[in-house]
Amino acid sequence: MNKINKNVSTAISPKRAENFPEWYQTLVKEADLAEMAHVRGCMVIKPWGYGIWEQIQNHLGQMIKSVGYENAYFPLFVPLKYIQKEADHVKGFAKEMAVVTHHRLEQQEGKLVPAGELNEPLVIRPASETIIGESFADWIRSYRDLPVRINQWCNIVRWEMRPRIFLRTAEFLWQEGHSAHATSEEACEEVMRMLEVYREFVENWLAIPVIQGTKPPYDRFPGGLETYAIEAMMQDGKALQAGTTHYLGQNFAKAANISFTDAKGKQQFVYTTSWGLSTRLIGAMIMTHGDDNGMRVPPKVAPYQVAVIPIQHGNEQDVISFKYAKTLCDQLNSLYFGERQPIAIKFDDRLLRFVDKKWQWIKRGIPIQVELGPRDVKGEMVTLRFRTDDPQEKHVMPRKQFIQTASKMLEDIQKKYYEEAKANLENRIYNVSSFSELEEHLTSQDSRLGFVRAPWFPNEKEDERLKSLGITLRCIPIVQRGIKGKCILTGKTTSTEAIFAKAY
Amino acid sequence: MNKINKNVSTAISPKRAENFPEWYQTLVKEADLAEMAHVRGCMVIKPWGYGIWEQIQNHLGQMIKSVGYENAYFPLFVPLKYIQKEADHVKGFAKEMAVVTHHRLEQQEGKLVPAGELNEPLVIRPASETIIGESFADWIRSYRDLPVRINQWCNIVRWEMRPRIFLRTAEFLWQEGHSAHATSEEACEEVMRMLEVYREFVENWLAIPVIQGTKPPYDRFPGGLETYAIEAMMQDGKALQAGTTHYLGQNFAKAANISFTDAKGKQQFVYTTSWGLSTRLIGAMIMTHGDDNGMRVPPKVAPYQVAVIPIQHGNEQDVISFKYAKTLCDQLNSLYFGERQPIAIKFDDRLLRFVDKKWQWIKRGIPIQVELGPRDVKGEMVTLRFRTDDPQEKHVMPRKQFIQTASKMLEDIQKKYYEEAKANLENRIYNVSSFSELEEHLTSQDSRLGFVRAPWFPNEKEDERLKSLGITLRCIPIVQRGIKGKCILTGKTTSTEAIFAKAY
Repeated sequence: MNKINKNVSTAISPKRAENFPEWYQTLVKEADLAEMAHVRGCMVIKPWGYGIWEQIQNHLGQMIKSVGYENAYFPLFVPLKYIQKEADHVKGFAKEMAVVTHHRLEQQEGKLVPAGELNEPLVIRPASETIIGESFADWIRSYRDLPVRINQWCNIVRWEMRPRIFLRTAEFLWQEGHSAHATSEEACEEVMRMLEVYREFVENWLAIPVIQGTKPPYDRFPGGLETYAIEAMMQDGKALQAGTTHYLGQNFAKAANISFTDAKGKQQFVYTTSWGLSTRLIGAMIMTHGDDNGMRVPPKVAPYQVAVIPIQHGNEQDVISFKYAKTLCDQLNSLYFGERQPIAIKFDDRLLRFVDKKWQWIKRGIPIQVELGPRDVKGEMVTLRFRTDDPQEKHVMPRKQFIQTASKMLEDIQKKYYEEAKANLENRIYNVSSFSELEEHLTSQDSRLGFVRAPWFPNEKEDERLKSLGITLRCIPIVQRGIKGKCILTGKTTSTEAIFAKAY
Repeated sequence: MNKINKNVSTAISPKRAENFPEWYQTLVKEADLAEMAHVRGCMVIKPWGYGIWEQIQNHLGQMIKSVGYENAYFPLFVPLKYIQKEADHVKGFAKEMAVVTHHRLEQQEGKLVPAGELNEPLVIRPASETIIGESFADWIRSYRDLPVRINQWCNIVRWEMRPRIFLRTAEFLWQEGHSAHATSEEACEEVMRMLEVYREFVENWLAIPVIQGTKPPYDRFPGGLETYAIEAMMQDGKALQAGTTHYLGQNFAKAANISFTDAKGKQQFVYTTSWGLSTRLIGAMIMTHGDDNGMRVPPKVAPYQVAVIPIQHGNEQDVISFKYAKTLCDQLNSLYFGERQPIAIKFDDRLLRFVDKKWQWIKRGIPIQVELGPRDVKGEMVTLRFRTDDPQEKHVMPRKQFIQTASKMLEDIQKKYYEEAKANLENRIYNVSSFSELEEHLTSQDSRLGFVRAPWFPNEKEDERLKSLGITLRCIPIVQRGIKGKCILTGKTTSTEAIFAKAY
């Protein structure tokens, strides 16, 4: 494989082992996923990357609807006076908010300048708790109106000082769920239900294994009472927060006056929750599944599962190969895999050299390539190239057999990606009992980098030593082993363990 | 029907004939479609309204993909220097652009104020020609890269001074298609192809008949060379522009330097097109199909086609009705209508009074309601309420017959809405041969208001008399009758006719 990569200019350089961050940047470009825009901190999501996002929207969207949520759309702009109502909220976001101050442009001395100053500046939503809260306050009157469950797919702006494509960009796309409940218990249940929806989606669809846990107090959503996360491990051993759910208590309800008359006629504030998952996940998929030849997209969220490429020799045989390929596409198009997901086929008859097409699909990470030439036509065969194999490897099999087994093959690829990622995660969780052991693992540059699991005594403030080392407490896992030990930070006896890591 | 409306508080008041604009506003609210946000000029699209938008995204989205477009996502922000490059473009939008000037907030004397002033202000996209042009310039090198076809679903901001829900709002949602071609001919063809896609979608899915035509020069997209539109007629006889496609020539290509090497090795600028269709269409649907009892959603874009409501009497019979209703839902769920579109069922078992549910669904405009009580269970029957009927009318039929004919019924409702709208359009196109005749029709408040078709000699400037009367030239229809006459504005002999109307 090394040899192959050296000889072709089309694989990713540098390799993961050589320079992981640069490998990531190169892959994003070479796999046609996205590129940084000329606008500071923003990205252009290209069709292959956006196609993956559409799959996420489609499948996660269905899961969100199936637990009782309805989609809606709220304004992009948040008046300052709303965002000011929740003190912690504004404090958390103040440093990264884009502010609209004018509503037109004017020519002044040959130069365009902002004009029409607004009486009150508008902030572009860094999250929509405050703006949706205003609507909830209008909609909710009685306990009969509860619970309210609303989801929104939209763009978000947070002015990132060190943008990194997909991971931290000034503008990104996400889904944000918001619910209001009559009781604290119900709201807490909802937060856990959605954390479980996220786990199921990220593990079963994106093939990324995660650890569910509670965030430490200093890492909560600004204005919230509790934040839960699903934490994933990238191939370099660093953590990536793949989704968060928040129990907001009555904080936002009090700020926006979201109240209701309960069954006894008493006026009460609601309890709210929120949770979000963003285009960042595409970055997580890359760093979980990508290899030195490019992206590997889990079949269940691939824009296409199969690319069918008729080989063009520039002779009359081409027409026959073309027809043969087209027929195969029609047959594959009626197939399903997984839980009744239709297989999506890309018929690639572009006027490009075969080798260029082949490498483009490898780098993009399509699960299966089918190349069809005269020999295949003659023998009623297909020539397959699996993204899980070495790029030079091919499999020839009867066309009928391929049609019968295509679904199974895709399921196997999906499973393989998950199992590889699961092994990476499990092999790199280190149980330690002292700070120096933690430090040894998490400041290393080799395979010792990973997740450190260690006894931890609940603490409101971030540990300064960790901070200075660039290490974070990722989460306090929901599933605890119940082992007694001494907190590696404070020395206090505890039976709680926490996960520590370097993180994206 | 009048009597019914007077007796129930749930229908729309005022009626269309009494006050059309107020009827519209009331309907939007009563049908749970949307509401104006507390943020100036912006709207909250509620689940039922957003559900319709999702249907539009889904079906139009498939049509756009089927003619070769790929979805992508470009930044919300446009640097001033980009928008400045096309002089007409900036002139057209300068008066209505939201401008971001700062990237954080600071506490100053207990007050939050914008801080971190940007070196160069950013405009929120009023359209994406300039920002997408920058990407096209990066992506396109050779004639082999052409054509490029990209579509984006996103939010847009144009600072409307007189916002009207769905029709003109500061923020709205839309789809914008952008293409780049090697030749002018190809680009012109593309513009007409997309105009035809729009016609097909708006007529066949939204059941709104339209006239396809060219816009007069002064009404073109800022920076474009030719604008085409589909014009629809509302029930009050006013016109509504339902979608536009633009031939941009090389204007934006020259501004952003989108050039390619042609087959002979010569450097050329590309020819671009763009076209968009927005949430405004929901306003068009309301004013085309709505009646005095609320919205009527064409089945093909209804979030649900059928609501199934078990009647609850508060006795043990309820369980049986509930089960019977649930079974019916399962049976309906596997059905298709139209061109293989699955029927979507809402099982409405909310703890609300039946009469409230019934009126809610009438006002929302669900095509068919099914109510199921003990009598239905006993006789294996269903009780149906069609949105095309009087609200008090019910139809009882065997359950089996309903399952067999449900698809056909939905198709019939879709057809009925289209035919009603088509009759309204055709009956209110008036052929006139003088300005005074035009004036008589278009300044009337009664059924004479509609579209006026009249001889027109091509003219670069807007007619001042029309302008002062609030009348606009809607379009020069693509399909001309070829009748010779004298231009009603200039008296010049012409065989071109144009459509004039009051408009939204």
